Amino acid sequence: MTPVLTAEEIQAFLLSVFPKLPSKVISIAPGQLVMEHVTRPYDIRPGGTISGPTMMTLVDTVMYAVLLGHIGTVAMAVTTNLNINFLRKPEPGVLKAEAKLLKLGKQLAVGEVTITCNDDPTPVAHATCTYSIPPSQSAK
Amino acid sequence: MTPVLTAEEIQAFLLSVFPKLPSKVISIAPGQLVMEHVTRPYDIRPGGTISGPTMMTLVDTVMYAVLLGHIGTVAMAVTTNLNINFLRKPEPGVLKAEAKLLKLGKQLAVGEVTITCNDDPTPVAHATCTYSIPPSQSAK
Amino acid sequence: MTPVLTAEEIQAFLLSVFPKLPSKVISIAPGQLVMEHVTRPYDIRPGGTISGPTMMTLVDTVMYAVLLGHIGTVAMAVTTNLNINFLRKPEPGVLKAEAKLLKLGKQLAVGEVTITCNDDPTPVAHATCTYSIPPSQSAK
Amino acid sequence: MTPVLTAEEIQAFLLSVFPKLPSKVISIAPGQLVMEHVTRPYDIRPGGTISGPTMMTLVDTVMYAVLLGHIGTVAMAVTTNLNINFLRKPEPGVLKAEAKLLKLGKQLAVGEVTITCNDDPTPVAHATCTYSIPPSQSAK
Repeated sequence: MTPVLTAEEIQAFLLSVFPKLPSKVISIAPGQLVMEHVTRPYDIRPGGTISGPTMMTLVDTVMYAVLLGHIGTVAMAVTTNLNINFLRKPEPGVLKAEAKLLKLGKQLAVGEVTITCNDDPTPVAHATCTYSIPPSQSAK
Repeated sequence: MTPVLTAEEIQAFLLSVFPKLPSKVISIAPGQLVMEHVTRPYDIRPGGTISGPTMMTLVDTVMYAVLLGHIGTVAMAVTTNLNINFLRKPEPGVLKAEAKLLKLGKQLAVGEVTITCNDDPTPVAHATCTYSIPPSQSAK
Repeated sequence: MTPVLTAEEIQAFLLSVFPKLPSKVISIAPGQLVMEHVTRPYDIRPGGTISGPTMMTLVDTVMYAVLLGHIGTVAMAVTTNLNINFLRKPEPGVLKAEAKLLKLGKQLAVGEVTITCNDDPTPVAHATCTYSIPPSQSAK
Repeated sequence: MTPVLTAEEIQAFLLSVFPKLPSKVISIAPGQLVMEHVTRPYDIRPGGTISGPTMMTLVDTVMYAVLLGHIGTVAMAVTTNLNINFLRKPEPGVLKAEAKLLKLGKQLAVGEVTITCNDDPTPVAHATCTYSIPPSQSAK
């Protein structure tokens, strides 16, 4: 699994598609990608914790980013399954999402995502995610 | 599983906590609740389909609503697991989410959610969701 | 979703592949199939409950059976994802597994399975399952 | 997360409960445990691959083992959710399952399991699993 795009190229593509993207690609490596998301008032739930949808959106975005980084922006991959376990209540601040590709096949890509918060290495959420890759644009 | 709140009471409570809530409780019945979400420009992805995070947020909201409707607003239940399968690309319009409680225990509640779109009965997404109920506020 | 095989034909095919199959196809209908599994001493855990693996195996089998019933025995479909929630402790006796196809696509089939026990309609387990269908043998 | 039992003690306890246990605890470390399973003729599917239920059973067993190793054999923990992605077709031989605890709470423990085969580091399956811990016997 060798990346075909840089972190900057992925970020530029994501911004061209989602101009209001609230998260940023930090780094890419073979089979892996890291994004950060600075929480906005919109992300905070009563009680001061971060909403589940904020984390689910981050999972979906980082998985899409790691996939783009390995198959290129031509692909129109779509999420088919997402499973998330919420482990601890995160504090507002910086969420770090680390995606790792478990499989990059012709039809399906599967990855896992670990979310941590404010430099505490204890995960606040963990997810697995499957993307379906259209036949004509699968990884070579 | 007998509801303890009406659809109107649940909606009023949800709005008091989430003033910008984009979805509405339509009906409640024993073990079941229906919400509708009219898609906003914000929910639409390039290509005209509805974003995954819009549907994941709706799943989380309708599960919280059906739980509130059966254990009351005192409970501070938190999502612990959410698993969603995206089945078809929905069109913009009205998403209908039907939640069904599979289990309402002392510690855990489990439900399934089926999302359909614009009166087409074919599901566009299906999810299961687990909520953890704090010890002092579990269902009696 | 119209079945292409009868319950008897599916059972005969399953037995030809798995001669020791411990479960039986009871009925098939458009998009649905029911199997029964009479618990064996092997399935019972200390404390008298039925093992999780017994129920996971039944989920996988009934999903395979409903898929065969709708695309025919030529297909070599493989499970790609299985998510199960264990809801209550089942008693030894007869497990009934009802599978319902949520999607029957060219590449992927997704279904849900509800397991009940000894004629009690309260579910003891609920699962969703995705099967990948090889390109040359997808549903027409 | 400090283990309270050795690999030998966990194996002995598992064998006392499941005399025919087909898998073996290899090692335990803080928050982690490794088991091996030598495939039996019973585990092989037509075509020479290993059955999904064999891997699901291994996931459930290794999660139970890592939990026992950290909370002791007094606990009667039960699986509440298991989500597995089958990534590649494993060959008969030795399956290695590595469990890692993501959370060890008072009510819930969550872990992930990666299965590899015959010393090839590419995962053949990946799972997450939640166990419910009875109130009186939770981790201290």
